[in-house]
Amino acid sequence: MVLGLRLHSALYPSWGLACLLPRSFASCPGKSDSCLTMPQLGLLHRRAWASLLGQLRRPPGAVCIRVVHSHSQVAEATLTSQLKPHQEKSNFIIKTPKGTRDLSPQQMVVREKILDMVVSCFKRHGAKGLDTPAFELKEMLTEKYGEDSMLIYDLKDQGGELLSLRYDLTEVPFARYLAMNKVKKMKRYHVGKVWRRESPTIVQGRYREFCQCDFDIAGQFDPMIPDAECLKIMCEILSGLQLGDFLIKVNDRRILDGIFAVCGIPESKFHAICSSIDKLDKMSWKDVRHEMVAKKGLAPEVADRIGDYVQCHGGVSLVEQMFQDSELSQNQHALEGLRDLKLLFEYLTLFGVAEKISFDLSLARGLDYYTGVIYEAVLLQTSARAGEEPLNVGSVAAGGRYDGLVGMFDPKGHKVPCVGLSIGVERIFSIVEQRMKNVGEKIRTTETEVFVATPQKNFLQERLKLIAELWDAGIKAELMYKNNPKLLTQLRYCENMGIPLMVIIGEQELKEGVIKLRSVASREEVAIKRENLVAEIQKRLSES
Amino acid sequence: MVLGLRLHSALYPSWGLACLLPRSFASCPGKSDSCLTMPQLGLLHRRAWASLLGQLRRPPGAVCIRVVHSHSQVAEATLTSQLKPHQEKSNFIIKTPKGTRDLSPQQMVVREKILDMVVSCFKRHGAKGLDTPAFELKEMLTEKYGEDSMLIYDLKDQGGELLSLRYDLTEVPFARYLAMNKVKKMKRYHVGKVWRRESPTIVQGRYREFCQCDFDIAGQFDPMIPDAECLKIMCEILSGLQLGDFLIKVNDRRILDGIFAVCGIPESKFHAICSSIDKLDKMSWKDVRHEMVAKKGLAPEVADRIGDYVQCHGGVSLVEQMFQDSELSQNQHALEGLRDLKLLFEYLTLFGVAEKISFDLSLARGLDYYTGVIYEAVLLQTSARAGEEPLNVGSVAAGGRYDGLVGMFDPKGHKVPCVGLSIGVERIFSIVEQRMKNVGEKIRTTETEVFVATPQKNFLQERLKLIAELWDAGIKAELMYKNNPKLLTQLRYCENMGIPLMVIIGEQELKEGVIKLRSVASREEVAIKRENLVAEIQKRLSES
Repeated sequence: MVLGLRLHSALYPSWGLACLLPRSFASCPGKSDSCLTMPQLGLLHRRAWASLLGQLRRPPGAVCIRVVHSHSQVAEATLTSQLKPHQEKSNFIIKTPKGTRDLSPQQMVVREKILDMVVSCFKRHGAKGLDTPAFELKEMLTEKYGEDSMLIYDLKDQGGELLSLRYDLTEVPFARYLAMNKVKKMKRYHVGKVWRRESPTIVQGRYREFCQCDFDIAGQFDPMIPDAECLKIMCEILSGLQLGDFLIKVNDRRILDGIFAVCGIPESKFHAICSSIDKLDKMSWKDVRHEMVAKKGLAPEVADRIGDYVQCHGGVSLVEQMFQDSELSQNQHALEGLRDLKLLFEYLTLFGVAEKISFDLSLARGLDYYTGVIYEAVLLQTSARAGEEPLNVGSVAAGGRYDGLVGMFDPKGHKVPCVGLSIGVERIFSIVEQRMKNVGEKIRTTETEVFVATPQKNFLQERLKLIAELWDAGIKAELMYKNNPKLLTQLRYCENMGIPLMVIIGEQELKEGVIKLRSVASREEVAIKRENLVAEIQKRLSES
Repeated sequence: MVLGLRLHSALYPSWGLACLLPRSFASCPGKSDSCLTMPQLGLLHRRAWASLLGQLRRPPGAVCIRVVHSHSQVAEATLTSQLKPHQEKSNFIIKTPKGTRDLSPQQMVVREKILDMVVSCFKRHGAKGLDTPAFELKEMLTEKYGEDSMLIYDLKDQGGELLSLRYDLTEVPFARYLAMNKVKKMKRYHVGKVWRRESPTIVQGRYREFCQCDFDIAGQFDPMIPDAECLKIMCEILSGLQLGDFLIKVNDRRILDGIFAVCGIPESKFHAICSSIDKLDKMSWKDVRHEMVAKKGLAPEVADRIGDYVQCHGGVSLVEQMFQDSELSQNQHALEGLRDLKLLFEYLTLFGVAEKISFDLSLARGLDYYTGVIYEAVLLQTSARAGEEPLNVGSVAAGGRYDGLVGMFDPKGHKVPCVGLSIGVERIFSIVEQRMKNVGEKIRTTETEVFVATPQKNFLQERLKLIAELWDAGIKAELMYKNNPKLLTQLRYCENMGIPLMVIIGEQELKEGVIKLRSVASREEVAIKRENLVAEIQKRLSES
């Protein structure tokens, strides 16, 4: 049983996503994402973004995810106890806890840019920010995640309340927040870490600490308008990040229920059958059928009827087709789901994203969590090139409607309908980091614009006075923490760090009341009146 | 014993900071911070910043910190178990764990703006970002914090490694990172949550989960250049945030050691005497002296000699004065400290911040952690106005030099000298939130620029098409999730949410191929050709 795992497959990239072959979609030609306008990036510094896009652009073809090991993953050392410095050193290994890692400055740059882009999209859609504690009351979590409760980190009982680290951002923190504060309507986003005691296979990108990025709309509204906006947001983000072509599979749990009923599956088996169907994106129908019959005791003819349904995927035309299904159209649940999906496709067409959406009857996600429409975005990639590991495509965003959750927290069981999505940012970080590695992109880890240098000895005071002027003018500036650095060392530093400008002060300049402004790339130098330096630097920076 | 608590007093606002009276400073007239140039804000959206500054500006006089209770602090509800929905409900209270809180959208806006401003300053000084896991190996933490180890959150032993939540960002995560990766040189910042099992007195702003904001320079450099930059950064941030006048107290642990030796305090008593002296900012010398003599068994004449020293505070002149001290100048430790402080003041003068710095011999911070210069920034406020709780001024930023820490992690004990600072952002958040509350500032919790409305029925499709155009152009837009919303409801929403622009589409507009663009504030409406709408909106937004 999987509750509230929006990005379940994203969190288990090793699970059967290895060979997801691009299918043909009735109304999903799988257009390039470039057909969607690239939204401007409210939050994001333009130049920073330009450089990220530069880094994202890659030779067409395959991308492979091999999680970039932060060097802290491998580094080791032994600890000298502070309190017994004179005893022989213990063999205690210095490392980060199993399944966790430090994020290097390079990784932080990529993350910051991607998160800025995602958050700016959430804000573009009017979302408010929210933050919740890293841990919750243990009782709050344990019962809600079923079998997954064993993956929850508990805190030690040190007296007082029993606590556990949060397992996701939506199920407990958001639903708990709404119920606790009697909030009946809210559009919020939440970016934060969550913790799960997976057996980590780092190479496959499974970590015990990872970042989640959720957007949810809570409240009673007219049908499918917020749901359509969630899908629009997923399209904007995936297009904006230029991860390559993608597709969003959509289904509705009520349609699945209807199909199961129509095919004569006993309710007791719904669950087991669902989890089999969930494997259709990585197992052939033949194998899934065998599992349902041999392992889960489904009658072969029932299995075949299921097969007729769940192998269908297409656009709105498939919805129409299902309406024509004499039996399914008799099932109240299925009918409601189909009506909503029809409306959803209408709205998605108006939003200009319908061609990115596929009605996929094999999509069966955390059923106990979702009550209506469910969706999952996958990247579409051609097979890997020689020498590259095959791409673990799989889910990079997912979500759905969960109208019952908040009511479970509410004393009177008052319901607050919710629909939302989660962006698989960890997966996206890995893709982008790997891509940059493949094309040998060098990432700047600082934003320093100007380096203050001198060719002569005993110019520290002048350098300090000068750099203070720059800092006070808001210019990002550095100097060497040495009394008498060599000019060559200073030049090399600028080249290595990608600092665009250098200001040089020496006896000559001091005498003439000028500063030498040097472009590190072109190596051109011009003398500029001291009083005009800041203005000139700002001019050059605004031009670049 | 307090190890590695840079912002110790900031974390214990209840500890004797209540009545810190502004002292007179030999060379510290306590100028208004406006005398320092306000740095431009690289990271921060200009308009967002302008509005924050607007909110920060307040009637002169006192400010009082009464931590703004996020409504989640008080709300309660009882939990209905998901797995037994039909049983009678348990009396389980829905709340956040003791000492923690949710951060409301209002609080998130304030935090985001303040953190953006702080981080942009760190980046202006060439710092790289770094992130580390929320928990570390237990062995890594426990021995390092001495008595404070009891405040560490341990995780439950669920098999595998024993883990604890991090207690700060510098002592273990940063020093551990440097040693583990053999990094000998790094300028990094780190913003993240830390956890401490304090007995929380929420009203006094003590939380068990709080945000830290650290900047550190690691590496072997010429003396006092990085140290001076740390103090410059503290000045830039505190001036930029316009929290009112502030002062940075500076001392050096070697000078304190020297004084203790000169006064004839046995090394065994250094610690106890230090903690007494640390209270001088909240207790009179008379009381501190009594504590040292009566409680800590110091000879009265020794206490008086100490008193002669630790009651001194002033500028660089005081440093000179100490050089003249026949005994102190014989003490090697003290001499080194004084030489460095003299150099520090020289550099701070070149940075233009010397008047913000006070050499204060009573400043005695985490001595086992720091090895050289130590500093602490305090806000200077006149006494509270009637009807307001007295202001807990106290430390809003602090730091110092710790050359021994990294060596404790290194197998061969290789040292990496470090100097750094921590901004007391939680304290600053409270001050700003309280200030905005006092002046009745209304905070916008969304950034929505345009609202898409209609006066007629059956215009949902047109609204959806229109809003998608705006989103795709990067414009922040919202609409009502209703098929037929009332125009008045839509107008009211814009006014309540502070949305500046409204685009209105109805039959008339549709016929004429125009859209009505309305300024919510002035209520002016103009009809604009559909194809020019985006450009016109962008023009208006760039002007505002």
